[in-house]
Amino acid sequence: MQAVLFDIDGVIYQGDRIIPGARKTIDWFKERKIPHLFVTNTSSIPRSALAVKLARAGIDISEDRILTPAVTAKHWVKQHVNGPVALFVTDSTQSEFQELELLDSQAESGAAALVIGDLGNLWTFEKLNQAFRLLMAEPHPALLALGMTRYWHTQNGLQLDVAPFVVALEHASGANAIVVGKPAKEFFDSALEILGSPANQSVMIGDDIRGDVKGALVAGLKAILVRTGKFRQNDLTQGIEPTAVIESIAALPDWWMEQ
Amino acid sequence: MQAVLFDIDGVIYQGDRIIPGARKTIDWFKERKIPHLFVTNTSSIPRSALAVKLARAGIDISEDRILTPAVTAKHWVKQHVNGPVALFVTDSTQSEFQELELLDSQAESGAAALVIGDLGNLWTFEKLNQAFRLLMAEPHPALLALGMTRYWHTQNGLQLDVAPFVVALEHASGANAIVVGKPAKEFFDSALEILGSPANQSVMIGDDIRGDVKGALVAGLKAILVRTGKFRQNDLTQGIEPTAVIESIAALPDWWMEQ
Repeated sequence: MQAVLFDIDGVIYQGDRIIPGARKTIDWFKERKIPHLFVTNTSSIPRSALAVKLARAGIDISEDRILTPAVTAKHWVKQHVNGPVALFVTDSTQSEFQELELLDSQAESGAAALVIGDLGNLWTFEKLNQAFRLLMAEPHPALLALGMTRYWHTQNGLQLDVAPFVVALEHASGANAIVVGKPAKEFFDSALEILGSPANQSVMIGDDIRGDVKGALVAGLKAILVRTGKFRQNDLTQGIEPTAVIESIAALPDWWMEQ
Repeated sequence: MQAVLFDIDGVIYQGDRIIPGARKTIDWFKERKIPHLFVTNTSSIPRSALAVKLARAGIDISEDRILTPAVTAKHWVKQHVNGPVALFVTDSTQSEFQELELLDSQAESGAAALVIGDLGNLWTFEKLNQAFRLLMAEPHPALLALGMTRYWHTQNGLQLDVAPFVVALEHASGANAIVVGKPAKEFFDSALEILGSPANQSVMIGDDIRGDVKGALVAGLKAILVRTGKFRQNDLTQGIEPTAVIESIAALPDWWMEQ
């Protein structure tokens, strides 16, 4: 094994609490100068805020060690889109898109692309309807989804993530979303390119049997499932076979040594 | 031909304006005592309000001549559900569900069924998330959709209808919605039962190539498409063949006489 991709939520954190052994494991990889990247579908906050959050837990990394769907979306738009972009992301995540030409925030036509992130309770009927009208305007814009996570576990209960809103827009408008983020193969490919590591010598560690494990396996990586975060026993009966299942990120150095 | 089913929006009304000849056509069928029913997917207002709206345009009909998804949903719930129902419909449409046991409006578990209607700008993130949490609670409740209309044309532009919210909930929760209303065959069957008319001697007149025309044809009825309401030229290239295409409801008596 040459390189490792860490999921953040559910692997390093459980809610706002750091998972025991997480910091030690990351230090272990750093000390050995093993190439690593933090790969998350979080679209509600930018990489700068993720780095601050990790630093508070004693994990010091620079922003460019974090890959998010917003980063890939920006690259995709720069390569494929000629015209203004309509962002449906939080104000703080907008900072990831600074270089792009943005559509007026009230406009209902004229977008060359829409970028849909996890807006949580900032979604209103008017905002969703605005995205719909933009999609129906001619010429039809591209529709980018920052991941396709269905929901997540908050301290107050389950909460809808980005995917339900993307499928609502697809169904209403007939558009097909381009998914950037896990589990898209292109997202794992980008991570490997940054790391300079071949797929079969790289390993993804995550708590999501589909987004992390299946996505990584399809992209040719090894994939380790942790029994923390959103892990449920039932995940092991879905016909998806992780390379290994470990108790938590704390057990990762042992697994690595065995290879 | 023995009986006729009239769609309302786009056939009798264009927005708030009555379509020329609509009243005269309906009087023509009334005078000849030809069995007829008004069949609409409207779920934002109850039948009483629809009857008042029609009366203001000089079309006098009693409520029981109108069939809406709310009416069929209530019957379905009475037959299949044992427990409280969570309504996601406007306050006025709640009047159609008076006889049912209703769940506390803030509850996040304990529903035996959810009924999802067109809430328009009454949808909030919290409300959609509440419906999602109810669907995820054990035992899983039934999910009823009051039609599967994607959007409609308002005077201010396109507006999302019920379907996008239903598919969002289906995708997030894994539930499969039971659709009551057009284009479900059961909805047309109910209409024919009320009319006491066999399918092949009944005709649906509507402006929606899928909801009205395809739905009616699948249920064995004849189906006439009008060139009013949401009709677009492009509807005729969708592989769906209406029994006839007429300029507007004003031309219906002529078509009837030719049969």
